[in-house]
This record gives sequence, structure tokens and C-alpha cells, in this order.
Amino acid sequence: MAGLSRAAILAVGSELLTPSRIDTNSLFITEQLNLLGIDVVCKSQVGDDRAELAAAFRFALGRADVVVCSGGLGPTDDDVTRDVVAEVLARPMAEDERITSRIRARFESRKMVMPAINRRQAMVPQGARVIDNTNGTAPGLWIEAGTQVVLLLPGPPRELKAMLPPVVEQLLAPRSQGLSLVRRVIKITGRTESHTEEAVQPLYRAWEQAEVPIAATILASLGQIELHLSARAASRESAASATAAAAEEVAAVLGLDVYSMDGHPLEQVVGNLLVARELRIACAESCTGGLLTSRLTDVPGSSRYVDRGVIAYANDAKIALLGVPPALIEQHGAVSEPVAQAMAHGMRASARVDIGVGVTGIAGPGGGTAEKPVGTVAVAAVGPGSAIRSRLFRFVGDRELVKFQASQAALDMVRRMLLS
Amino acid sequence: MAGLSRAAILAVGSELLTPSRIDTNSLFITEQLNLLGIDVVCKSQVGDDRAELAAAFRFALGRADVVVCSGGLGPTDDDVTRDVVAEVLARPMAEDERITSRIRARFESRKMVMPAINRRQAMVPQGARVIDNTNGTAPGLWIEAGTQVVLLLPGPPRELKAMLPPVVEQLLAPRSQGLSLVRRVIKITGRTESHTEEAVQPLYRAWEQAEVPIAATILASLGQIELHLSARAASRESAASATAAAAEEVAAVLGLDVYSMDGHPLEQVVGNLLVARELRIACAESCTGGLLTSRLTDVPGSSRYVDRGVIAYANDAKIALLGVPPALIEQHGAVSEPVAQAMAHGMRASARVDIGVGVTGIAGPGGGTAEKPVGTVAVAAVGPGSAIRSRLFRFVGDRELVKFQASQAALDMVRRMLLS
Repeated sequence: MAGLSRAAILAVGSELLTPSRIDTNSLFITEQLNLLGIDVVCKSQVGDDRAELAAAFRFALGRADVVVCSGGLGPTDDDVTRDVVAEVLARPMAEDERITSRIRARFESRKMVMPAINRRQAMVPQGARVIDNTNGTAPGLWIEAGTQVVLLLPGPPRELKAMLPPVVEQLLAPRSQGLSLVRRVIKITGRTESHTEEAVQPLYRAWEQAEVPIAATILASLGQIELHLSARAASRESAASATAAAAEEVAAVLGLDVYSMDGHPLEQVVGNLLVARELRIACAESCTGGLLTSRLTDVPGSSRYVDRGVIAYANDAKIALLGVPPALIEQHGAVSEPVAQAMAHGMRASARVDIGVGVTGIAGPGGGTAEKPVGTVAVAAVGPGSAIRSRLFRFVGDRELVKFQASQAALDMVRRMLLS
Repeated sequence: MAGLSRAAILAVGSELLTPSRIDTNSLFITEQLNLLGIDVVCKSQVGDDRAELAAAFRFALGRADVVVCSGGLGPTDDDVTRDVVAEVLARPMAEDERITSRIRARFESRKMVMPAINRRQAMVPQGARVIDNTNGTAPGLWIEAGTQVVLLLPGPPRELKAMLPPVVEQLLAPRSQGLSLVRRVIKITGRTESHTEEAVQPLYRAWEQAEVPIAATILASLGQIELHLSARAASRESAASATAAAAEEVAAVLGLDVYSMDGHPLEQVVGNLLVARELRIACAESCTGGLLTSRLTDVPGSSRYVDRGVIAYANDAKIALLGVPPALIEQHGAVSEPVAQAMAHGMRASARVDIGVGVTGIAGPGGGTAEKPVGTVAVAAVGPGSAIRSRLFRFVGDRELVKFQASQAALDMVRRMLLS
């Protein structure tokens, strides 16, 4: 058997085709397969329907050399995975008495009688290897078909998660190519997707032709861009060092716009800088309504650098809690750099911290004007020392997105100030 | 064209095949298709890879009469959906100058020059109808091929969610079979999944046998439970009135534990109550770090009832900003009902509002003790008038989940107080 390298994941269950449920088993399966350098080339979800499942299973067999199915192994009529897979692979099924007695014992241990329908779970296609399920009645099945492998696992995550790792280690590892896949997520802020692409594109060709080739994908959302790098190599170490080297090249090209080389969120990056410099921060928030401080305090141990914050939504609150001069608000409007600066100064002085931040803006949907439309947000940061920065942003998107981007801009302003 | 009834959803993007990302666009797409009684028969995710996408797209065309693709419409080299779909359908592509000028204008409005690569987004397969994207550069495409329809939408959820409903209403509805599927989400807090199930189970049998049968699913997560009801009928009205009647039966059984009959989040429900009673609120937050006020201010128009808030993480901040007596903290500990009450009183008095809320707890992972483990959170609400409530909770889960559950408990305490 050639080394297995391409996997397809098939999740079976009609609930996975409704607007409220999603297949999450495939994330764990992917993680496990990637450990062996096996790539997932496609994922599918089908209902408890023989014809649909047969078609999807045939398709998966045509695209991959490992097919992992989850779900549809229960005892009831609408659990069709076992039957359909056996039929497509043309393997007759027979009852495995050891499975039947194991299921019967499971029921008896709970002082119950095994319902007759559970016998279905003991049906095994010819040549299949049975994978024990210590957390449920449905055993898994490992079926080799020519150079391909089919693995059937039960759908409940608790059962699947306990069963897969031993299969990966004992059955799959010896058949993999022995390659390791390593991924690295670089996070970027302060430039658009196209401008990021333009800057990193020249690196792509060299990466493709390198001894350990690097694959790259750009993912953009409002307020941040992610560049995903991945490499496959004979050892985990060489895949990791190739992605690390590529990440350094990206950092050299994008400079300060890269805020994380290892997937950390911006609040964590800012937190690490504050800890390293032994600085404390306090934020005065208007339009973000507490989101900025909430993000800062999402980081475990953040009480080392955050001890308070103020949400000053109304002008009165800005005046009373932060000492913003009413004349300043009258002159420039509440959404302005001078007011954001005054909020930051007031917060810093009253909290007696090193860095004060002020955010004031129009999150929408109401409140916009021609001059200051919805999405206009002023951000200011003062300290440490006499450092001061401020900027007026124009964000797009709905209320929650404006809030997120404003919090992102404030965190990024602090980060750049600390690095300058 | 016969009425469209079977859909396949295809999500394109290599990130969707990693252990850290999942396709969630398909949930919204499913909801929209279901409105027309169109069933989703399979969903797939493929990477930014021409061969894989072509195979998956051909497969989808073989199974469904509507194929909805999301993603891969960006300007970069790895955005291949447009090309592959045009190739499989054998439609030559040409640049649509109107799209190019719209994209150029979008960049210019942000004082930027359109990068040359963005021209790719203006390429349109012969016979395709262009779907405007007001939130991004990538337009959508509607392509009819014999009795089938192919719809291409951009991957960013904000763009896709704005573009799909008009397509469903204007282009898809006239081609559907005219059956309507209506869903209703009832939100519940204050009881477990099993207790919810026990209470509503007696309703199920009547629902199954009704003229317009109701299907029900319970979805539980920390801090809330959702009960999804759905009905399919010849008219939208009769499906809607059947689900509405079923929702009323649920409300009669579960009483005050139902906080929303139409899927609204708790902060919206509390906001509506505050507006109706013309009351204002202010929150003093410790472990939630601003999340509670941020959720309250996620609601458009919330400045009518929120004008400020205080984040008092450290004891010093609780004393200085909220007037919590130091002796109280010494006697009961910072995480205690008396301190939460003092925070709520202090907040209410200093902000001169009707309702003051105090939240203090241990979000973890550090800071827990044998007596007060991680997840211990005291919540208090005072006012209007002399009303006062408080409770000590023990939440499970990681830091972010404890924060969310604490904010949920505080909002629910205010809701029950306002309704009592």
C-alpha cells in the first residue's frame, strides 16, 4: 500500500442539513489526520438517506485514499451508514457475536434488556476490523479496500474522540507517508487583503519551489487579515522550521502590520507587551460600550495590567467620570480626536496607570451625519511618558462590526505605541 | 422549469479544511432555502483547488437542482470559483466594465487606488446575472443551466447575508414549488435541557399529528437552551400560524423561563422592557470586564437606557469608583453577594439611574479557592424602587464561558425583576 496522504470526511445525519446544527466532528478528525501529514481534500455532510449517502461515499472514494465517516451507526432504521458502505464496497455482512454480547452486557450492566434492534450494530462487513467503543453501543469499523482505507465512527463526539486516536496511532500511522503537516497563522492589521497579497505574492514562487514547499492562504475579515502557512515534511521539526522561516519572511515584508506570528488574538499580544514592560492600562469607552476592556480581560492573568475601566456613553458621563471639558465637546463634537484624547488623559490620570485609551464614535444604525457618518470612530492613546496618538477612523459594517473594528483599532494603536 | 426543490451547498476555501475553521455560511443559506420549501440534500467543503472544486461542483450538479457556492470570489490567484464554474458549465467569461468601475469607485471612496488584480472580480460567465454586493468588491453570480440554477456568493458572512435574501425573494421564489417552511426559535434560561425536555415532551405527540405537523428540536448550550420549532405548509401564513400556536403552548408550560419567542437575544429582551417602562440601567462589572455593558449596548438605540458603566476589576477600583466599604470586602470577600449588592447600589447612586447591577466573580483559570472555586460569581440588581435581588452562582466552563454565563445571569436577573 502506498503511503496514505489524501482524506475525505463524510458526516452522516439529517440534522446536519438544518439551519441550526453543524458538523464539528470533522475538526477533530482533521487534527488527527494532519498529525500524520494526511491532508483533508474535501468534507461532506449528507442526511440519513441511502441514495444520498451512497452517492457521497462513492464520490469520496473517488477523491481520497482515506475516507472517514462519522454518524449513522445507531440501531434504528435511519442509521444506514453500515449498510450503504458494505453495499458500495460489495462486502456481505454478518453478525459478529462478540459485538452482540458486548452490547447485551452493556444493557445488562444498567439493568436493562437489549432491544432486538441493537443487533444491527453487530453487523460487520466481510474483512472489516472492529473498533471498540467504550462509551457507547456502536462499534467503529476499519475496512481496507485495495489501496484505500474506510473508517466508520459513531457520531456522538464523546465516543468518536475516544476511539479515533488509537486508530490513528496503531492502524493509520504505519500506512501514512510518515510526513508531518504543520500550520502557522500570521495575523495582520492595518492593510487591505489586496495590499497584503501584493506584498507577499513575490514570496510565493520561492515557497512553492522550496525543498519543503510552503502553501499559503489569505483570509480577510473586517479589522484583521490572516495568512495561513502550511508545510509538509518528513519530520515535524523540518515542517515547523520551514513555516517558521516563511513566517519570518512575511514579517520582514509586512513589518509592524504583523501583530501575531502564531495565531494569538490582538488582546493577548497587547497583554504580553504590557506584562513585559510592566505597564498598566485603563480604557474609557463610548461606542465600544465595554467591549475593549472585555477583550483585554479575556486574557488569563490580565488583572496584572487592567484594574478598572469606564464606559462613558453620554456626554454627561464623559464630563463627570473622565473630566472631559464640556467646551471641548461643544467645539469639536463628542466624536472627535480632541475628545478621544481628553477621555484617554482623564482615564489615565484617574486610574493612575501608564496608558490611557479613549474611544468615541458612532456605532449606528442611528446617529450618523453627513460630516460624521455611522462608522466614524475617534481613538486616542496616551502614555507611557508623554507619548500620544490619535486617529479618526471610518469603519464599515453593522453596529457589532463597528464596535469590533473600533476595539481592534484601539488595541492596535496601543501595540504600535509600545513597539515604537 | 419544474419547481426547484433540492439544493446542494458548496463552500470553497482551504481554511475550511483545517482543524480551526468551519463553514457557517451554509446555516444561513439553508434557512433561506427552507423558506421556499427547498431542502438541502448535501453540503460540501473544498479547498482553493481547481481540480477538487471542479469535481465537487460536478457532483453537486448531479444531486441537486439548485447549487449554492460560497467563497473563492476574491481578487487573488487562489480565488478559483468563478473560473471553475464557468469551465464546468462551458461558459466563456468576459469582463463586465460596470463591475470594474464599481470596484474602482469603492477603492476611491476610501482614497485608495484599485489594485490591478481586482479586475478578476469583474469577469462574468456568459449568460450570468450579476448580483450586486454593497458590502464588498466581489459581486455574486446567478447562472441558469437548463433546469438547474447555480448561485455564486462571496464567502464573508456580512456580504453573503446581505445578498442572499433578495435573490431568494426575486429569483428563487418564482421557481420554487410554493411550499413554505417556517422555523421559530424559542429561547429559555433557568432550567436544564432534561427539565425542558420533560416539560415540553407531552406536547410533541399532538404536534406530530396536527394538520400542519410541528417538528421540534432542543439545542442546549451553557447559559441558555433553544427550542426550534418548524412547520411546512402550502402557505407561509399557515406554517407561521401553526408554529406560533405551538410556541404559545411552550410558553404556557415553561412560564418565565422563556425569555424570547422569536429568537431575540436576552440583551434585546431586557432593552425592550427598559424602553417600555422608561427605566435606565448602569452596571458595575468585575469579572465580566465590560462584557455585560457591551452586550446591553449591542442593541441599536440602547443609549436610551444606558449612559455609563464602570469596570471595577481590583478591590481598590470597587472602593474608589463605587464606594464599596473596604470592611465589607474584608468580611465577605470580593466575590460575595454583599459586595455585589454594594457595587449595584454604588453604581445606581453615582449614575442616578433606576437600576444598578453588580457582578463580581472568579472567571479563572487562576484565583479559585476550595470555598470559592473558579466559576463562582455573585450577581446583584437593585431598583427600581426598593427592589433588590442577589445570588451566588457556580458556573462551569473556561474563562470566556464563565464571563458569558455571568452576563447572561445578570441580564436574566434584571428581566425577572422587571416582570415581577
